[in-house]
Amino acid sequence: MRPSHRSADELRPVTIERNVARYAEGSCLIKFGGTHVLCTASLEDKPPAWLRGQGRGWVTAEYAMLPRATHTRTKRESTSGKQSGRTQEIQRLIGRSLRAVTNLQALGERQITLDCDVIQADGGTRTASITGAWVALHDCLKWMHGRSIIKDHPLRDHIAAISCGISNGEAVLDLDYAEDSAAETDANFVMTGGGSLVEVQATAEAAVFTDVQLLAMMTLAKVGITKLIELQKNAVA
Amino acid sequence: MRPSHRSADELRPVTIERNVARYAEGSCLIKFGGTHVLCTASLEDKPPAWLRGQGRGWVTAEYAMLPRATHTRTKRESTSGKQSGRTQEIQRLIGRSLRAVTNLQALGERQITLDCDVIQADGGTRTASITGAWVALHDCLKWMHGRSIIKDHPLRDHIAAISCGISNGEAVLDLDYAEDSAAETDANFVMTGGGSLVEVQATAEAAVFTDVQLLAMMTLAKVGITKLIELQKNAVA
Amino acid sequence: MRPSHRSADELRPVTIERNVARYAEGSCLIKFGGTHVLCTASLEDKPPAWLRGQGRGWVTAEYAMLPRATHTRTKRESTSGKQSGRTQEIQRLIGRSLRAVTNLQALGERQITLDCDVIQADGGTRTASITGAWVALHDCLKWMHGRSIIKDHPLRDHIAAISCGISNGEAVLDLDYAEDSAAETDANFVMTGGGSLVEVQATAEAAVFTDVQLLAMMTLAKVGITKLIELQKNAVA
Amino acid sequence: MRPSHRSADELRPVTIERNVARYAEGSCLIKFGGTHVLCTASLEDKPPAWLRGQGRGWVTAEYAMLPRATHTRTKRESTSGKQSGRTQEIQRLIGRSLRAVTNLQALGERQITLDCDVIQADGGTRTASITGAWVALHDCLKWMHGRSIIKDHPLRDHIAAISCGISNGEAVLDLDYAEDSAAETDANFVMTGGGSLVEVQATAEAAVFTDVQLLAMMTLAKVGITKLIELQKNAVA
Amino acid sequence: MRPSHRSADELRPVTIERNVARYAEGSCLIKFGGTHVLCTASLEDKPPAWLRGQGRGWVTAEYAMLPRATHTRTKRESTSGKQSGRTQEIQRLIGRSLRAVTNLQALGERQITLDCDVIQADGGTRTASITGAWVALHDCLKWMHGRSIIKDHPLRDHIAAISCGISNGEAVLDLDYAEDSAAETDANFVMTGGGSLVEVQATAEAAVFTDVQLLAMMTLAKVGITKLIELQKNAVA
Amino acid sequence: MRPSHRSADELRPVTIERNVARYAEGSCLIKFGGTHVLCTASLEDKPPAWLRGQGRGWVTAEYAMLPRATHTRTKRESTSGKQSGRTQEIQRLIGRSLRAVTNLQALGERQITLDCDVIQADGGTRTASITGAWVALHDCLKWMHGRSIIKDHPLRDHIAAISCGISNGEAVLDLDYAEDSAAETDANFVMTGGGSLVEVQATAEAAVFTDVQLLAMMTLAKVGITKLIELQKNAVA
Repeated sequence: MRPSHRSADELRPVTIERNVARYAEGSCLIKFGGTHVLCTASLEDKPPAWLRGQGRGWVTAEYAMLPRATHTRTKRESTSGKQSGRTQEIQRLIGRSLRAVTNLQALGERQITLDCDVIQADGGTRTASITGAWVALHDCLKWMHGRSIIKDHPLRDHIAAISCGISNGEAVLDLDYAEDSAAETDANFVMTGGGSLVEVQATAEAAVFTDVQLLAMMTLAKVGITKLIELQKNAVA
Repeated sequence: MRPSHRSADELRPVTIERNVARYAEGSCLIKFGGTHVLCTASLEDKPPAWLRGQGRGWVTAEYAMLPRATHTRTKRESTSGKQSGRTQEIQRLIGRSLRAVTNLQALGERQITLDCDVIQADGGTRTASITGAWVALHDCLKWMHGRSIIKDHPLRDHIAAISCGISNGEAVLDLDYAEDSAAETDANFVMTGGGSLVEVQATAEAAVFTDVQLLAMMTLAKVGITKLIELQKNAVA
Repeated sequence: MRPSHRSADELRPVTIERNVARYAEGSCLIKFGGTHVLCTASLEDKPPAWLRGQGRGWVTAEYAMLPRATHTRTKRESTSGKQSGRTQEIQRLIGRSLRAVTNLQALGERQITLDCDVIQADGGTRTASITGAWVALHDCLKWMHGRSIIKDHPLRDHIAAISCGISNGEAVLDLDYAEDSAAETDANFVMTGGGSLVEVQATAEAAVFTDVQLLAMMTLAKVGITKLIELQKNAVA
Repeated sequence: MRPSHRSADELRPVTIERNVARYAEGSCLIKFGGTHVLCTASLEDKPPAWLRGQGRGWVTAEYAMLPRATHTRTKRESTSGKQSGRTQEIQRLIGRSLRAVTNLQALGERQITLDCDVIQADGGTRTASITGAWVALHDCLKWMHGRSIIKDHPLRDHIAAISCGISNGEAVLDLDYAEDSAAETDANFVMTGGGSLVEVQATAEAAVFTDVQLLAMMTLAKVGITKLIELQKNAVA
Repeated sequence: MRPSHRSADELRPVTIERNVARYAEGSCLIKFGGTHVLCTASLEDKPPAWLRGQGRGWVTAEYAMLPRATHTRTKRESTSGKQSGRTQEIQRLIGRSLRAVTNLQALGERQITLDCDVIQADGGTRTASITGAWVALHDCLKWMHGRSIIKDHPLRDHIAAISCGISNGEAVLDLDYAEDSAAETDANFVMTGGGSLVEVQATAEAAVFTDVQLLAMMTLAKVGITKLIELQKNAVA
Repeated sequence: MRPSHRSADELRPVTIERNVARYAEGSCLIKFGGTHVLCTASLEDKPPAWLRGQGRGWVTAEYAMLPRATHTRTKRESTSGKQSGRTQEIQRLIGRSLRAVTNLQALGERQITLDCDVIQADGGTRTASITGAWVALHDCLKWMHGRSIIKDHPLRDHIAAISCGISNGEAVLDLDYAEDSAAETDANFVMTGGGSLVEVQATAEAAVFTDVQLLAMMTLAKVGITKLIELQKNAVA
């Protein structure tokens, strides 16, 4: 039995609330159970310096946790003077995932920054961030389209992400913090609406894993991501 | 007429929602109209290094804005590698204000950090932070008292804060962003439940001011702070 | 009786020596008793980047203390890698105060930086800095006028500053370090030659304060600042 | 045909030269074709601060590239003042991989740091680093064992890593820079001598990928890693 | 003829004013013509961390220039976040020079920091700093002796420094800024009262130099340093 | 007898291997006994920002040590966030030395960066760096000449460097780490092929030194540098 009394392929309750930030061009508050992430999309009229003059835009992401999103207070990265390796890894993953389904030519010479700020953390913050950031990006592009800033819609597909793990030898879906801390292996999957893979990251924690276990986690991930994309569709409908 | 159609001595709608952060020892979400600040209190079992062995505790504060709390996106202080002068000024003010009503001896050799994270900014973020941080601090101390960590209650009084300004030559209470940007003078008042002053900061923006104008702002501030303390009392009742 | 045997409304001996820095466009060494601040004004031919092309100039300030200006040696901010919150607060205050009496349009697209370096600190370094920086700014503008860089004189008025405090329940003027450390309340006032207020900052240290006490301090401040402006007038005559 | 005229499952020539650093407790220079990495193991007599008193040791890694390891010169991270997100990601991966086969209890309260410095980069620097770091770690532990610093041998298994990619729709093994730049998908696999997985990281670059493609890459990776572990065995024999 | 109308072996007017900093254990203001350096000695009751428990003390130095000590304003190192290479080179030289004549055992487990702050710069700031720092160090040790903190006097000898250069093919002593900027070669000499060398640094600027020229500069340096040490003796008499 | 059994004027075995870095425009691995430095020259098509539009180029250097080039591991400067004073001193010296024999006009508006990375350190890393950097610079300029990027050859002369010391009262050439640690005085000499001096840096370590000793070291340095330049000539022949 899982600590949360869920079945192996059961997501936590997921909700997506749009338009939660007054000034952002797109925004949502996404909850995967006790994990709450505020995602905002901010449009800038020019691309980053290294991309100027190439007729393309850029989509990037930043990720952070509020100091008391966690069980014990985490020091602010602004006082330590730099972002941790973990923060950088996650925000690079979010940005890469969203760019995989965005037509950067259709965006024109602009940049959209997705800020994923974790209000409360109970495991799966990076997967909630990717899933919510897609909604914020969608709404930002819709906002741009409504103002005729872009003609075509640059989003080619949905994108969503979920974590899986091997817990007591069994593959399980969408780990919360308690389960994540104890899992033998931890994996994150990012997939498109069309069922293609964008990113797979599997890491042995307490124990190494087999390819059969990787496949079992991937199978669960497909189930979960299909549901998440359904929720995205309902949210933006 | 004020841009928000309020009378000169009228606060924006203020709400205080407690227990919004699962892990914090005390927390609230405070709203001054469109200004929303999440305040959490985090208890640590030891005081800062410079205070060790003196039998006293410490109360400190950190302040930050989410990147898209503002009209245009603000760069994260973790990426610029340091906190701005404005951030440091505000968090020093919040900490000082709370310490003015806290018995640090009664706290024992511990530290409480008040994190004030601005989710949405529409003027008055520092005054909302102080007012909300008092509630989070109160609840943290109550939590400690409930676990017999402290015997006496270290809070000596309420503390709340409000901004005033001179707008078109008139003193007005609780400026929102639109009014703040256009005001001739901007002032922040921090007062106790007993009506004493803890901090007065008045700054000429577009025009210098007179002592009569300072007094007019102070009179309005008393009105506002009295109401805010009433709201605190209801919140923690 | 005050520790320095002064009456409640008595300044420490104040002297202003001009032209103390060979290369600066304006400079003075100002002494408030044992507090000595070297103020220099440096002209740059272009405004800060964010102000380019707007036909206006900028006046800004930087503040620092020599490591052994203080009783015990203070670590250099260049070795800690950043300016402290206190330093930033003070230099923002100095810059704001000077801009309040400067016509930035008349300055043209230029920047003047006022460096206030505390050679010796005995309380009141920020108020001595503001008072001295005005003289350095005045001389820099005179230098520019003499070379026909500007036609009109951009200074609209004098500006000076003084600290007050509540010490043993009484309002006193111009606190030295010994008095400042023991005062119940500490306040800084910045005023123009015309008697208008530019900045009021009052902070409860050991005890909260009343509006009557704030007014008593303001009354003393007016006395002190009137004398300081007299000294400025003599200095630049 | 691959640009390097290799077959799909063919590694580049791999060589491992031990004892290349006079002072290090273990070291090797590993070459994957044109990718050359100097790996050294440095023993410290105490564990990191957060692990003190727990009877366990730690294995960690640092990764860097010489400025001209690359086609165009890369700025030194010491002059930019911080390690890039990519550097941190890679060194975290190396450390995690080695810890997966190390008995940290058997190591005692000590720390071993694996420094992986890329002398020349032609793709696959992280996989060469992991494969070479294992040899340096092995030799460091042997050195310790020879001096009776440890009794048991803390290494439980071999560990090696290889990259795979989808290139023109086909899975290929051990990408060099030219192939890596053009690949649709890029993946890194870390496996033990026993054939278990320690880390899988697959990322869509130019195109998304399918689970069939992931499996095809994993099959190639097993072939490659089996050969690498053979080479490690020969090297340390 | 030299720009300053001095003969080749003529120092600028040198003055040393002691006891210029109220709080420092030793201090002086030294002037080499238009170069003015404030030197203070600060005593700390413990040595730096790396020297604890070895029964010896340490003498170290820090060097800085006020922003407008120079013809055009120099950016503060506290705002750029780090000390320049030039600053570090100079302060390492000052510290090394003073330690060469100090008995660190006799100092006991203490640290003395010499702060050399350049108030005005007209060439030769590092040599003025060394010469003045010796006086501040002497007075600090005298202060300690007077309070029986030390029994023996740890200073073994005088130390002073002077610059020389090759200007229009001729060796000249004590270059000011104008001469320094145009010199072919620039050299700094640090010598003891006994005439021994402590440091020689000669650098080709506009042209390479010969050993004969180095000797000619060294001969001048002896003349100058002999005079400087005479001035030190008079100052501390 | 010297620890290395060399005579007083005997260099360690010196080797120079060219073309060791695939991508660099010029490179060599230079060994002074156990000191190994990888020197690469990197061409950039534009000069540094402060030199733009002046028709001249620039030659600069960066120096670093691999963490385990030394007896005990040295912390990476990228993790401490800044280059040490020693590193900056050395790289400034290398750059200055090479510029002394380079015609920067003939280079055109370009920059060449010499990276000197110490693979193994056994004393004399800065002198090996200068000597090897000359070869890398030579080869870079030859590469440019071969591609008609420059018409004239900007190198005016050879440049090489060697350390000397006073060891047990005797002058000795080319100190290794063991000898350097115990020497009374340490000196570095940089000379041209024509026998002119470019830089002399002599520092009293355990004991002060005389001018006779300086001359004795300089005599040895000439012997050593003559041999080093012979080796450079053979290397680039």
